[in-house]
Amino acid sequence: MIYLDNAATTYPKPPDVQRAVSEAMIHYGANPGRGGHTMAMSTAERVYECREALASLFHLENPAGVVFTLNCTHALNMVIKGLLSDGGHAVITDCEHNSVVRPLAALATKGVSYTMVSVDPTRPYETAQRVRRAIRPTTRLILCTHASNVLGIRTPIRQIGQIAQKFHIPFAVDAAQSAGILPIDMEKDNIDFLCMPAHKGLYGPMGCGALLCRGTYMLSTLVEGGTGSASLSESQPTELPDRLESGTLNVPAICGLNGGLRWLHRQGGVGELAKRETNLLGTLYTQLANTKGIDLYTPYPDLTVCVPLLTCNVQNLPSEETAARLNDAGISVRAGLHCAPSAHRKIGTVTRGAVRICPSAFTTWNDLEKVWKILTEIARNP
Amino acid sequence: MIYLDNAATTYPKPPDVQRAVSEAMIHYGANPGRGGHTMAMSTAERVYECREALASLFHLENPAGVVFTLNCTHALNMVIKGLLSDGGHAVITDCEHNSVVRPLAALATKGVSYTMVSVDPTRPYETAQRVRRAIRPTTRLILCTHASNVLGIRTPIRQIGQIAQKFHIPFAVDAAQSAGILPIDMEKDNIDFLCMPAHKGLYGPMGCGALLCRGTYMLSTLVEGGTGSASLSESQPTELPDRLESGTLNVPAICGLNGGLRWLHRQGGVGELAKRETNLLGTLYTQLANTKGIDLYTPYPDLTVCVPLLTCNVQNLPSEETAARLNDAGISVRAGLHCAPSAHRKIGTVTRGAVRICPSAFTTWNDLEKVWKILTEIARNP
Repeated sequence: MIYLDNAATTYPKPPDVQRAVSEAMIHYGANPGRGGHTMAMSTAERVYECREALASLFHLENPAGVVFTLNCTHALNMVIKGLLSDGGHAVITDCEHNSVVRPLAALATKGVSYTMVSVDPTRPYETAQRVRRAIRPTTRLILCTHASNVLGIRTPIRQIGQIAQKFHIPFAVDAAQSAGILPIDMEKDNIDFLCMPAHKGLYGPMGCGALLCRGTYMLSTLVEGGTGSASLSESQPTELPDRLESGTLNVPAICGLNGGLRWLHRQGGVGELAKRETNLLGTLYTQLANTKGIDLYTPYPDLTVCVPLLTCNVQNLPSEETAARLNDAGISVRAGLHCAPSAHRKIGTVTRGAVRICPSAFTTWNDLEKVWKILTEIARNP
Repeated sequence: MIYLDNAATTYPKPPDVQRAVSEAMIHYGANPGRGGHTMAMSTAERVYECREALASLFHLENPAGVVFTLNCTHALNMVIKGLLSDGGHAVITDCEHNSVVRPLAALATKGVSYTMVSVDPTRPYETAQRVRRAIRPTTRLILCTHASNVLGIRTPIRQIGQIAQKFHIPFAVDAAQSAGILPIDMEKDNIDFLCMPAHKGLYGPMGCGALLCRGTYMLSTLVEGGTGSASLSESQPTELPDRLESGTLNVPAICGLNGGLRWLHRQGGVGELAKRETNLLGTLYTQLANTKGIDLYTPYPDLTVCVPLLTCNVQNLPSEETAARLNDAGISVRAGLHCAPSAHRKIGTVTRGAVRICPSAFTTWNDLEKVWKILTEIARNP
């Protein structure tokens, strides 16, 4: 199988991740932060190491601000509802995933409204100014995806972060498609809340996400429960990470994520793998651009403009049919709508969806060459 | 190490669980319910198998009502906030964990109130009648822990379920300490929502829980996001499990849980292991009851009254000190408060906490004999 659905989850995982998960189940099998016995403490240490590694990677001063979640969606909901549960206005982009749009829509009954600004990947200054112009006196959150899961295009988070800081509005970034792929500096980018999955560009297992909090704003809680701290109080503690982490943590996945982070570091750190993937994808892009009957929706692969993913359609086939034919040839890609309708509106593929090709560190040119051959065949005989 | 902190999480996990997790990471590494390619489909099948296994074990008619969560706390929050987000009254017991009390307390600002009724393990009829008497016209939820994590004592859920049905009030059960240990029949017990962790009596990995919904009442959503379904809609789908499952699922843990369920079935199914553990614990109980200087807070081990766990203190030592001395002897137990203050109030251990000894399928009499010897030593030389 040639797996190119890495924007949904990276596969395979590096051997380090597999090993870290197995080791966690054998050696770190106690509930961290609950008991005081030796294994509970050593398990808690492993969890804390992962907080430290994430804090270091994303330039967050205090590792206690690293909160583990079920997935990136969970982290995004915590930010959105933690700031807007009593109403208010949000500024988002037209590249947001349903993990942002649906929670905001659900809050409409509480008086929450939002403005969606259009991202122009070739004009970052103008995109940031659109955000600025969308700010209202009631704006309580600016939330931007760092890179579109449909188009790959980047949002100018540094410029937007400066605007957020100037207007004293909390700034959150959805790094679902960028964590581990593009450098992110919470301090320099002025990000108050950074949401990410463990299982995409960070190469951890599915079932884990993280919310990194700079401590600039306090979130009201989405979930309350046992934290192993202040047990007598009916209120959730105010300290992070306890405030936002209730119930048992996903220890195997957290250890696996830490294995992924160590592996990523050994590959040269964030950006190195993405450069290689961008180069590979560039070659495929050029070949597909010269193939009759293939519509490309993503810009030419260039890390300053987009993350390495390519979205296309062939002739006038429904995207699912193209994907099914690729699957018959042993190639796994995602088709249809990708839980981000406004991004599809941007490229006119709301009806037919689009085929997304996303490489990982393990993708070779041979893999992409096969994709090119099959897509060419489909284009010739749709 | 002799591990007796199994009420926090069972350890070790059966080899089946470890194997299922590893297999999942190698063979079922795609994102289920997103792509239509071969591995996405086979991964989705494995997830559905686990839904079927849970539905079968707990007598839930439709496996689509099985919703996977981060942990039991997450599941309980989904029920509480899914029914009471606009106010209302709840009836709970005095054995509830902070995973029930804290979410209810957090809803006080929305006008939510609750009545806590006292569980008397020797008088199930009276306990159920206390629940009935606590019902008000505004009661929108009856939520009971099935077995106390501090005292082990059982709540008469069948009798309470009948009352809930008669009054047309949603009935939810927190099976954190009973799933896999006591038989639960959602139909016969009239349970509308059953919440459980994967990683305790079901022997799955940490990082996963489940909420089983009978479909009798619809919950409003706690988290919204991508479901891989109805992507064009800004609203969460109404169908289960999609309505309550947003973002990427914890596939490795779900596969691990399924491994745990298969293993449990091979051990004779729910109840068989608990009988053995109860017998072992009975011997320890008798010996400790005859040892001067040891206070026992749990009833004599008897599955009709309680799940197999034993809570005690030695002389007038803080529980943490006793646990530390057990730990020095290689025995892992939990001490302090166990995130359930009202249960501690019931036995007068709010200040000093209590030492909890909880066996699993892997506990032997040799293990418990060593516990007895060390506790006896501590009692002699406190």
